[in-house]
Amino acid sequence: MKLLEERILKDGQVFPGNILKVDSFLNHQIDVALLNKMGEEIKRLYGDCGVNKILTIEASGIGIACITAQFFNCPVLFAKKTKTKNIAADVYKTVVASFTHGVDYEVIVSKNFLNEGDRVLIIDDFLAEGNALLGLIDLCEQAGASVAGCAIAIEKGFQSGAQKVMAKGVRVESLAIVESMNDGKITFTQR
Amino acid sequence: MKLLEERILKDGQVFPGNILKVDSFLNHQIDVALLNKMGEEIKRLYGDCGVNKILTIEASGIGIACITAQFFNCPVLFAKKTKTKNIAADVYKTVVASFTHGVDYEVIVSKNFLNEGDRVLIIDDFLAEGNALLGLIDLCEQAGASVAGCAIAIEKGFQSGAQKVMAKGVRVESLAIVESMNDGKITFTQR
Repeated sequence: MKLLEERILKDGQVFPGNILKVDSFLNHQIDVALLNKMGEEIKRLYGDCGVNKILTIEASGIGIACITAQFFNCPVLFAKKTKTKNIAADVYKTVVASFTHGVDYEVIVSKNFLNEGDRVLIIDDFLAEGNALLGLIDLCEQAGASVAGCAIAIEKGFQSGAQKVMAKGVRVESLAIVESMNDGKITFTQR
Repeated sequence: MKLLEERILKDGQVFPGNILKVDSFLNHQIDVALLNKMGEEIKRLYGDCGVNKILTIEASGIGIACITAQFFNCPVLFAKKTKTKNIAADVYKTVVASFTHGVDYEVIVSKNFLNEGDRVLIIDDFLAEGNALLGLIDLCEQAGASVAGCAIAIEKGFQSGAQKVMAKGVRVESLAIVESMNDGKITFTQR
């Protein structure tokens, strides 16, 4: 998606350790008008897939998921990273290792909101090693829900996440795929 | 807001300890169409206040904030609950005690995205003891930004949060104010 690539080039910052910081428009401060264009593109990609629920993971995926859900006329479900006393014991659980934070955490969704027969579109802001997506797919499998695919804002194409997810037979669409960030210069690729 | 009150009566669940669970439409599964109506109402309330930024706190506030931002044509900034290695040291910090989780946590925003001259609308899903709002107001004060007010989905009117925030001279608008939940029966009030 040209608009997103241009924005990454304009406002993204590269830090040591292959960290791409896009917190001025995507995952801290959020440019909602950009998200709207991204939602429109995701609708173009997945509009004919019978999606009836969008699944994401807190926190950075929630904005994109909610804006995109407007194009699909469906609810959003966001997986939670810790068990709060407001959530019943009746949950599907999985464990996700975080690339950004360097820790494992438990991720849950209530069994009430993910069901056999659901046709799920998984949305997240970043795809690197694919751990979050694999966790969300696991939650769908536990629920007997089918996964229409994954829609990602920014994929780090030099990491193995997309391959791992596609190896499970799940479609992956990334609006921008970073090919490399060597010497702070960002280049993109297509799949 | 009648629509939200009706939805709370229909789908909200009361649990011991004055816990109101609305996770089927507000803070786990999200009814984005309802959020859109809420955003429209928040625009009606704050549309003439010169708002140029919406501030919320992860995770449950992000959906409402993003949908509402569409009516204000402004970006969203969400305060983060833990320091990740993706965020520079250059942050405003405050400490918030969580009613739901029973712990204190540090909340940060990057100094890059909250500035003197910003006119901030603070949005959150729940208002109980007001700790999150007071923390977000503190961040705005540190930045020298002015606060147009707070827009809340559900206020627990029998707790002291709104009073504490209004005592600081900050306007509070709650789309539904729960007066009591005795014996599981939810009643509403107006301010």
